[in-house]
Amino acid sequence: MDDKKHILDTIDNPGGLKDLNEAQLKELCAEIRERLIATTAHTGGHLAPNLGVVELTVGLYRALDCPPDMVVFDVGHQAYVHKLLTGRRDAFDTLRTYGGISGFPKRSESPYDLYGSGHASDSLSIALGYALARDARGGDETVVAVIGDGSMTGGMAWEALNQIGQCQTRLIIILNDNEMSISRNESAFEASLGWARMNPRYWETREKIQRKLSRPGVGRGLVRLGTRVKDSFKHLVVPGVVFEELGLVSVGPVDGHDIGLVEAAVKAAREMDGPVLIHTVTRKGKGYEPAQSDPALFHGIGAFDPDTGELLKKNVNGAPTYTEVFAKALIAEAAENPDIVAITAAMPAGTGLDKFQKAYPDRFIDVGIAEGHAVGLAAGLAFGGRLPVVAVYSTFLQRAYDQLIGDVALQGAHVVFALDRAGFVGDDGPTHAGLYDLTYLRTIPTMRILAPSNEADLVCALHTALRLDGPVAVRYPRGTGTGAELPAQPCSWEVGQALCRHQGDRGAPVAILAVGHMLERAEACRELLAGRGIDASLWDMRWVKPIDEEAVCSEAAAGKLLVTIEENTIRGGFGAAVAECLSAASLTAPLLQLAVPDEFSVQGPIDTLLDEAGLSPERMAERIAERLALLQGADDKTTPGVLLSRDDTVGEPHGAQEAR
Amino acid sequence: MDDKKHILDTIDNPGGLKDLNEAQLKELCAEIRERLIATTAHTGGHLAPNLGVVELTVGLYRALDCPPDMVVFDVGHQAYVHKLLTGRRDAFDTLRTYGGISGFPKRSESPYDLYGSGHASDSLSIALGYALARDARGGDETVVAVIGDGSMTGGMAWEALNQIGQCQTRLIIILNDNEMSISRNESAFEASLGWARMNPRYWETREKIQRKLSRPGVGRGLVRLGTRVKDSFKHLVVPGVVFEELGLVSVGPVDGHDIGLVEAAVKAAREMDGPVLIHTVTRKGKGYEPAQSDPALFHGIGAFDPDTGELLKKNVNGAPTYTEVFAKALIAEAAENPDIVAITAAMPAGTGLDKFQKAYPDRFIDVGIAEGHAVGLAAGLAFGGRLPVVAVYSTFLQRAYDQLIGDVALQGAHVVFALDRAGFVGDDGPTHAGLYDLTYLRTIPTMRILAPSNEADLVCALHTALRLDGPVAVRYPRGTGTGAELPAQPCSWEVGQALCRHQGDRGAPVAILAVGHMLERAEACRELLAGRGIDASLWDMRWVKPIDEEAVCSEAAAGKLLVTIEENTIRGGFGAAVAECLSAASLTAPLLQLAVPDEFSVQGPIDTLLDEAGLSPERMAERIAERLALLQGADDKTTPGVLLSRDDTVGEPHGAQEAR
Repeated sequence: MDDKKHILDTIDNPGGLKDLNEAQLKELCAEIRERLIATTAHTGGHLAPNLGVVELTVGLYRALDCPPDMVVFDVGHQAYVHKLLTGRRDAFDTLRTYGGISGFPKRSESPYDLYGSGHASDSLSIALGYALARDARGGDETVVAVIGDGSMTGGMAWEALNQIGQCQTRLIIILNDNEMSISRNESAFEASLGWARMNPRYWETREKIQRKLSRPGVGRGLVRLGTRVKDSFKHLVVPGVVFEELGLVSVGPVDGHDIGLVEAAVKAAREMDGPVLIHTVTRKGKGYEPAQSDPALFHGIGAFDPDTGELLKKNVNGAPTYTEVFAKALIAEAAENPDIVAITAAMPAGTGLDKFQKAYPDRFIDVGIAEGHAVGLAAGLAFGGRLPVVAVYSTFLQRAYDQLIGDVALQGAHVVFALDRAGFVGDDGPTHAGLYDLTYLRTIPTMRILAPSNEADLVCALHTALRLDGPVAVRYPRGTGTGAELPAQPCSWEVGQALCRHQGDRGAPVAILAVGHMLERAEACRELLAGRGIDASLWDMRWVKPIDEEAVCSEAAAGKLLVTIEENTIRGGFGAAVAECLSAASLTAPLLQLAVPDEFSVQGPIDTLLDEAGLSPERMAERIAERLALLQGADDKTTPGVLLSRDDTVGEPHGAQEAR
Repeated sequence: MDDKKHILDTIDNPGGLKDLNEAQLKELCAEIRERLIATTAHTGGHLAPNLGVVELTVGLYRALDCPPDMVVFDVGHQAYVHKLLTGRRDAFDTLRTYGGISGFPKRSESPYDLYGSGHASDSLSIALGYALARDARGGDETVVAVIGDGSMTGGMAWEALNQIGQCQTRLIIILNDNEMSISRNESAFEASLGWARMNPRYWETREKIQRKLSRPGVGRGLVRLGTRVKDSFKHLVVPGVVFEELGLVSVGPVDGHDIGLVEAAVKAAREMDGPVLIHTVTRKGKGYEPAQSDPALFHGIGAFDPDTGELLKKNVNGAPTYTEVFAKALIAEAAENPDIVAITAAMPAGTGLDKFQKAYPDRFIDVGIAEGHAVGLAAGLAFGGRLPVVAVYSTFLQRAYDQLIGDVALQGAHVVFALDRAGFVGDDGPTHAGLYDLTYLRTIPTMRILAPSNEADLVCALHTALRLDGPVAVRYPRGTGTGAELPAQPCSWEVGQALCRHQGDRGAPVAILAVGHMLERAEACRELLAGRGIDASLWDMRWVKPIDEEAVCSEAAAGKLLVTIEENTIRGGFGAAVAECLSAASLTAPLLQLAVPDEFSVQGPIDTLLDEAGLSPERMAERIAERLALLQGADDKTTPGVLLSRDDTVGEPHGAQEAR
């Protein structure tokens, strides 16, 4: 940057935008783009969506008075411009870094962040809540929700739209329609409609049914169809009909890169008494050639060279990511089994299924941002004889918890869930953390949960899951593998059988039971303990459900301290599974559960977060040694297994104790 | 019934319908209605919805060839007629009884039951899965989904509709529009549209914004609005526009009580190449005066006198239901605190909020079958300064698991969840079981969970929850309370403080930790143990999260066998919370977790199901005594707490062991 005083530096809050003239606004937008590119080139982030909403955000804030007016961003990854204009300009370099500002709106970060978004399609519900609370208070501030066309495919948005249409209260919805999200100058949402109508089969169906139903004797109840046919072409060229049907006034399309137009539309809408939807069209990646020509890549990107747009190499050990290994393995399985179908909820690249799509376009389904439907659809496909694999991030499968229980497990449908990004997710922070799946999956009767400990085992875990029955989840973390050699031929694992990686001496006082990729840290911990003269056996559990009861019980029977290590919340996870196993077997054994504390996580490098959670090899070894010392030093062994001291958790800031 | 041979008795499968003439069909429908009334008068059940679909079901099956054609019922409570026509005629008397046929379609019950419905809005996803599987196989059978207008408000239906419109594959959707579900001759769904347009504010808004935007200088991007105004009245009288927009051909409205019309429409639709929606209008309760005049009461009803339609008295002990006590308590709290708002997802009567609505119509919100939105809306209301109480069945809150985490807890929103029907639900069976909430709620950081042990305590638990911060759940069972005297003034409980109900002697070898209404069975169990000379302390835990660490640790330190008793899955529930507490405190104690086994439940009386789950006082006392004998008989106490025998779980069919 040069020494020239930047206009952006004079904008401390959205009010400052109102004094700028047209030339200054243009200059400001250029500065914002420069800043977005410079920062995300270092930190990574959602560049393309933010480049697309520069003018939209400026125009919106010029039309509003914030506070008291309020803007709620759906998903929130398009809120960088908002952050730059609402007091986070100077902190912007810390975007998505450990201790820095969030890549999403965050209520604790700023009063302008009215909702800590992260997942899609909930902004309309939140905004309606604000609006109804305002009405109850007799207030008159304006509430705005900014939502992308993709988020409109999520069912929660539909649920809210239904009610918004009914309430007829003052609320503005800005539908941010990224023209680049698909190939034509329409939103994915509108396009899905348009596409259907462009399909000759639609018209054939229409014509045929009309002929059928106009035969004599069919009755009068069916005659209305005819009139609709004539209307249909109009609907093709008039967007917003669906919203109008729901009782919203729909305005647009408005060029979202025209500040004046956006401002005028919002100003008009905010004087209305009812809900208004402003349909804006923007271009993802606008103003930065690399992002404009590949908006999908620049949707969420790692660090890159701002001059060329080329991604900086991050993968130092040369190992593939779990996602890559999964995709390759699934493609290989699909070659053997023609029943396999792969399903994603709008994350083809993130889940690796884009590669599957290329290999098997007819066996690939993208349902949109619609995890509930994805899981229900998978059940239906399974009933029909297909073998569906739902590839989904752990955090997003939370949206389909009920469907996992009712649509899949209760029905005995064989559906394989490939749970990517299980555990900490790094820069995206707590909204995206996959820290609950081991617990929520474990509640589901008949569910089986595999947790491969490296990328080679992922191949075998997937192979195993595809050959079972009923619901099966394979859980793996974000990022690169260990560099383990991939198997030429994937093997099948025995259900519920753990693998002993280190036997330990006969009298070893500790048994470490590790889940998934935590095995690596567990092994380091074991070595540290060995260095301190403490011998520990080490298990790669492989299965979280069903758990290897024999392994657990035999280690307990050997009088060992059982130590569970998992990257999941401490609440009800694998550690709890071991406790349940002991209770069912009428065994009493000392148990140390090492897992993620019961608190919301922060953003930062995954390794840092694991360390902070008390899951560094050093800290784990220390806790094990401390507990062992307590056990061995316990005087009173006539009362079975009772050890009174609680000292070993003192001074453990991220300890596993229940908050009170 | 008289001795005359019934037509229904000749119908062994839907094929039999095709030979009947018009008079016979009419006679058959009368017989079906008679059967529906006679059976549900004994068993209870969803009478009104089934009376409404008699002709619809008959007409539908006459038009199809099943198998191979397929019908998927949404929710499934309108599938009694289907059951009568598909081989369950003779077993129909056992409807909803222990060991009898299910009140919902069930895949294990009949090949005609293609999906075991229960929750709403998923039939379109399931049917699309069947259709796509058929396409992959090159089959040409017809797939039909039957879905009510209410289910269309659920987001999952929208997600599926979006994709159905895109796929343009052969699929028939029968929209069963119960004219009686609201007061006018429209569906709730269509009415919500119609209503919005009937609202003068809608037209004012439209007109004003049109004036605003036609001012000079506003730009060309906004001009399209005008053309839509003229169309709007047409949309008012032409239903199905939303579906047409999504790419479905929409037919109707068709009189759903005209077998010939339904048959003709389905026959026409099944010859089409793409998706067709048939909009049928039916009357809930049709043909039975009491149900027709009060369809809400007869939607799901207990046993009644078929002659008068009067409900049979079931409540023998005179105690109110938990639902009634909750409603009354909430109304009382709302009188004190004007910020309280109550939210239901289409269950005002079931949750007791119908009474709240009468008392505070402006502070009551029914969002439709839309739990995800309900929770998001609650968060928005809380941010805006309101105090929302979401009253919902445990099983349905599963639909909003992600919103609980992301929209509420992560944001620190103070929302109170009143979880009704937690635990077994009785006749509705496994689709409705509320057996997972303690676990899935426990995973959520900052969540607090109260479990009152009787209806009087429910008043205090609600009182406490309303005075806390952040997310709080109050969990209570289906059915009547214990008859405990309700407090004149509700008290507030200390967070995380359990109540010792029976101290026990100093040397008592057992501590029973009971959750919620299991306290009653726990007390009976304690008395049985006392009769065998085993003294046990007894705790009413009150809080599942945060757990009373002090109580747990002091009892463990006293060397007792800890016994947890809860009506929740064994996986990760309260028993696991106690294990976590011990691990965090570096304590080793014998633990016996008594909970619901990790398998899908069956239908039947709740008390029977609890007994079957091993939770009868007798069985619990037996297991405790057995475990105690093992502990006391253990020879080797030098290895802390290790007890090898697993005998006490042998022969326990519903034991808590992991299935392998």
